[in-house]
Amino acid sequence: MRGSIRALAALRGWVAGPSSQQQLGTLQQRGVSSQGVPEATRAGEGWLWALCSCALASASVGVAFGALDRSTAAQCRAADKPAAGALREIDKDEVAKHRSKDTGIWVTYKDGVYDVTEFVEQHPGGAARLMLAAGGAIDPFWAMYQQHNNDQVKGMLEQYRIGRLKGGLPAKAMADPYANEPQRLPALIVRTQKPMNAEPPKELLVGALLTPNELFYIRNHLPVPQIDPETYRLKVEGEGLRTMELSLEDLKTRFRRHSVVATMQCTGNRRNDFNETSRVVKGLEWDGGSISTATWSGVRLRDVLLAAGLDDEDPNVAHIQFEGLDKDMAETCYGASIEVEKAMDAGGDVLLAFEMNGVPLPPDHGYPLRVVVPGVAGCRSVKWVGKIIASGEESTSFWQQKDYKAFSPSVDWDNVDWNSAPAIQNMPVTSQICEPQRGAVVDDDEVSVKGYAWSGGGQGIIRVDVSADGGETWHTAELQKVPQKRGRGWAWALWEATIPLPKGTKGPLELVCKATDESYNTQPESAAPIWNLRGVNCNSWHRVGVTVQ
Amino acid sequence: MRGSIRALAALRGWVAGPSSQQQLGTLQQRGVSSQGVPEATRAGEGWLWALCSCALASASVGVAFGALDRSTAAQCRAADKPAAGALREIDKDEVAKHRSKDTGIWVTYKDGVYDVTEFVEQHPGGAARLMLAAGGAIDPFWAMYQQHNNDQVKGMLEQYRIGRLKGGLPAKAMADPYANEPQRLPALIVRTQKPMNAEPPKELLVGALLTPNELFYIRNHLPVPQIDPETYRLKVEGEGLRTMELSLEDLKTRFRRHSVVATMQCTGNRRNDFNETSRVVKGLEWDGGSISTATWSGVRLRDVLLAAGLDDEDPNVAHIQFEGLDKDMAETCYGASIEVEKAMDAGGDVLLAFEMNGVPLPPDHGYPLRVVVPGVAGCRSVKWVGKIIASGEESTSFWQQKDYKAFSPSVDWDNVDWNSAPAIQNMPVTSQICEPQRGAVVDDDEVSVKGYAWSGGGQGIIRVDVSADGGETWHTAELQKVPQKRGRGWAWALWEATIPLPKGTKGPLELVCKATDESYNTQPESAAPIWNLRGVNCNSWHRVGVTVQ
Repeated sequence: MRGSIRALAALRGWVAGPSSQQQLGTLQQRGVSSQGVPEATRAGEGWLWALCSCALASASVGVAFGALDRSTAAQCRAADKPAAGALREIDKDEVAKHRSKDTGIWVTYKDGVYDVTEFVEQHPGGAARLMLAAGGAIDPFWAMYQQHNNDQVKGMLEQYRIGRLKGGLPAKAMADPYANEPQRLPALIVRTQKPMNAEPPKELLVGALLTPNELFYIRNHLPVPQIDPETYRLKVEGEGLRTMELSLEDLKTRFRRHSVVATMQCTGNRRNDFNETSRVVKGLEWDGGSISTATWSGVRLRDVLLAAGLDDEDPNVAHIQFEGLDKDMAETCYGASIEVEKAMDAGGDVLLAFEMNGVPLPPDHGYPLRVVVPGVAGCRSVKWVGKIIASGEESTSFWQQKDYKAFSPSVDWDNVDWNSAPAIQNMPVTSQICEPQRGAVVDDDEVSVKGYAWSGGGQGIIRVDVSADGGETWHTAELQKVPQKRGRGWAWALWEATIPLPKGTKGPLELVCKATDESYNTQPESAAPIWNLRGVNCNSWHRVGVTVQ
Repeated sequence: MRGSIRALAALRGWVAGPSSQQQLGTLQQRGVSSQGVPEATRAGEGWLWALCSCALASASVGVAFGALDRSTAAQCRAADKPAAGALREIDKDEVAKHRSKDTGIWVTYKDGVYDVTEFVEQHPGGAARLMLAAGGAIDPFWAMYQQHNNDQVKGMLEQYRIGRLKGGLPAKAMADPYANEPQRLPALIVRTQKPMNAEPPKELLVGALLTPNELFYIRNHLPVPQIDPETYRLKVEGEGLRTMELSLEDLKTRFRRHSVVATMQCTGNRRNDFNETSRVVKGLEWDGGSISTATWSGVRLRDVLLAAGLDDEDPNVAHIQFEGLDKDMAETCYGASIEVEKAMDAGGDVLLAFEMNGVPLPPDHGYPLRVVVPGVAGCRSVKWVGKIIASGEESTSFWQQKDYKAFSPSVDWDNVDWNSAPAIQNMPVTSQICEPQRGAVVDDDEVSVKGYAWSGGGQGIIRVDVSADGGETWHTAELQKVPQKRGRGWAWALWEATIPLPKGTKGPLELVCKATDESYNTQPESAAPIWNLRGVNCNSWHRVGVTVQ
């Protein structure tokens, strides 16, 4: 386990101001980037965060401890338990002795002590990740992975409580790794603040084929790293390659510049549409806005790999791995990989991009360099890329191996075999109605409907059908598209249709849309048959309930 | 219009035996190929077919005259019409004068004379095609395109009858262009005899990953051409190319041999599943068996194009067109095209194949040379290929322009704009239950279900789910696959699942399956929302009704 040996060895003192969430709000009101706040200000209100340099990697809101839902044993025990006030006081040193199954596995959170022995194997982020916190405070991990900070997760943890920590609360003695996040547009709808995950309002999303950078959805897994462009180096290494270190200047001067218009989409986009099923999914509650489109400019990954000597017939190279410079406390970086065929295909248009819509990448989108893998799930387009590795294997990162995969509706957290499904690369065809929105009132005998449609793998959208009678009759929408070659249709289509309402309609009415791509793949009607435990790839017909007056 | 000037000029006399359909039946009983019948025998019972060398191109059964369904004017007129016997006699010369809208457009069929002026524009094969028969007998065209030979089409024609042809029946004076068809396995389920269209029984289809050549589905548009391998030459020409003529020997000795396992599927496969909707589609009634898999061997199209000097950056080349040596009476050949990017992609695996499962191509499958375009609709894998053309344009053939496209359910024959949809290339993900078959009796508390699944564009199958309760719960099937790289998953998966029946089930039960491919595209639940006038790309969940005893 990477980082496990050094886990408790390296202690750090970070000094920071109030929670960065409060800070960000204040700064946004003042129109000042948090990056611009003087060190002195942040240090002034100092509270020490004595954090151990180790990691708990779980990518998505509410995933960790989610398996507790089904931990019947734990729930039974919770029912028998005395109230927290009646629990015994436990010393920090005693907690520290409980770091294995033999002794029991204990952690503390604020002033609570918890025996999570039974839960460890169910931890969605992996047992090994949770074990890094064994015998100590879980608070610093949750400060990093703030998706744990919700009542559901806290309530579940409470079921494992065995005592109170003697000597008070260590929790405040921590700096906030998110203290230096960039400023974001207040218009963005924030799903989690730390890490920042936010989507633009839908009516703005369909305003233009190219999403303004400030409105582009943000999907961060970790704090935004602060990178000096002067000292930045991209390392290129691996199977059969000459190791190279490239500065930004090298990239810009030694390789031919390319631009591509590509849509980026999170695999969790439209996750909230699984709410139409009765089954809970775990992850960010994206409401269809974690998708945006930009013109990306940079150099071809292919050209850089060729310069490093990659032989694309080399049987030992099957994957190109990317490591981001965004890291957790154990120095474990975000990582992902794509197939070498995609990386090396000149028609695959994979870029190492330094510009987004004609300006340098904003910090939230990978400054100074990111990977852009058109047609592929956004999670493979690694931001703040620091290293590229040619390999026979996929990235071993949590996000490649234990997340961003979809399973049959029959697979749940208690029987999932993560190796049984391939990492999502190309994404399926999808579409969404962005106007009118749910709950809108329609007072005409026709309605103007607008939205977007996109498909992975370069399979451009050829048609969007809209229905106001549950799919009995369909109206074909007008498409607005960037001209792109067949098979390289990386950008979404925006669409609009004015459709008559069924005669005599009053009261509730459902609008639905479905898209068809160049492969003539289309969307499934409903979400239940594509339900999957991580709530990814929701591409059922999009349904919007409105009221006709 | 290609062939229109020479249309009536070239008259031929062909001599043949009884209808080849009868002949084939007799020959099959005797176990003799029709190719082996001595010329003398066939000439012996001679009836002269004085056919004009012109064309009526309509690819699929029942398409021609289909638009008559909605020709209200014609139907009103038919109701007012006197019985055929009471109609006036019309001389052949008078018929010949009616070849334009000004004079009226007349044709004869057997001893009937028909005024088809109002119908011409509705002819699914195009007005121009039908105009080739104006002023004369339609019989020879129908002999070629025998899909017209059904009661529906004949009944519709009858509505246009205006008289009886003076001087008897010219219809018998014709040879049969299908007289020399190869022998086929009696096990094949024949959908049309002329041209031959036949599918294997489903239980045999899923017997092996590689379909035996004799069981491979047959989709012919025209008579099988008889080609001498010694004199055969493949012409390669077009934009920016040195024109080349290659013998089979040239192909085998000058280029590197490649093999690929690829599934071929007709776009009309599973067309009969549109019967679950209330709307008629027109085309061969494929019951899910117009799909098969073989190991194809030959040379890469890419290598041949490179040898001819193709520059794949040439902006004037966008498509690679193929012409078959199967021709109609106007010498118009079967034709299709694919995008140059697919043709030139080494990972696209497009072959000029001379072998199928290790032996020379059988006559029905393109002997001596065919195109194999993995991942793409079977209609682009042109058989008996005689010419390859690099071009800025798609093939102008009927089959590229006016067939093998899919539209919204809102588009019907009266409002179709063929230019509004792209020619089908990659096909969508599909699957089928092959065992048990519809109507089977199940007498256990579990059922073993078998089938195939496939997706276009090299997107291999990653999962097949089977349900015995209408999709409430799903069981994941075991897959059997040829190992292929991601993105080059050209071959189908066969699958099998043993699933428990819902407790207490007696009587009718529906089994359903759905597949998911590497892009995580999946199948739509029902056929109505993907209904399209040509009945192509039917990929809704496959449903099989059985009875539980």
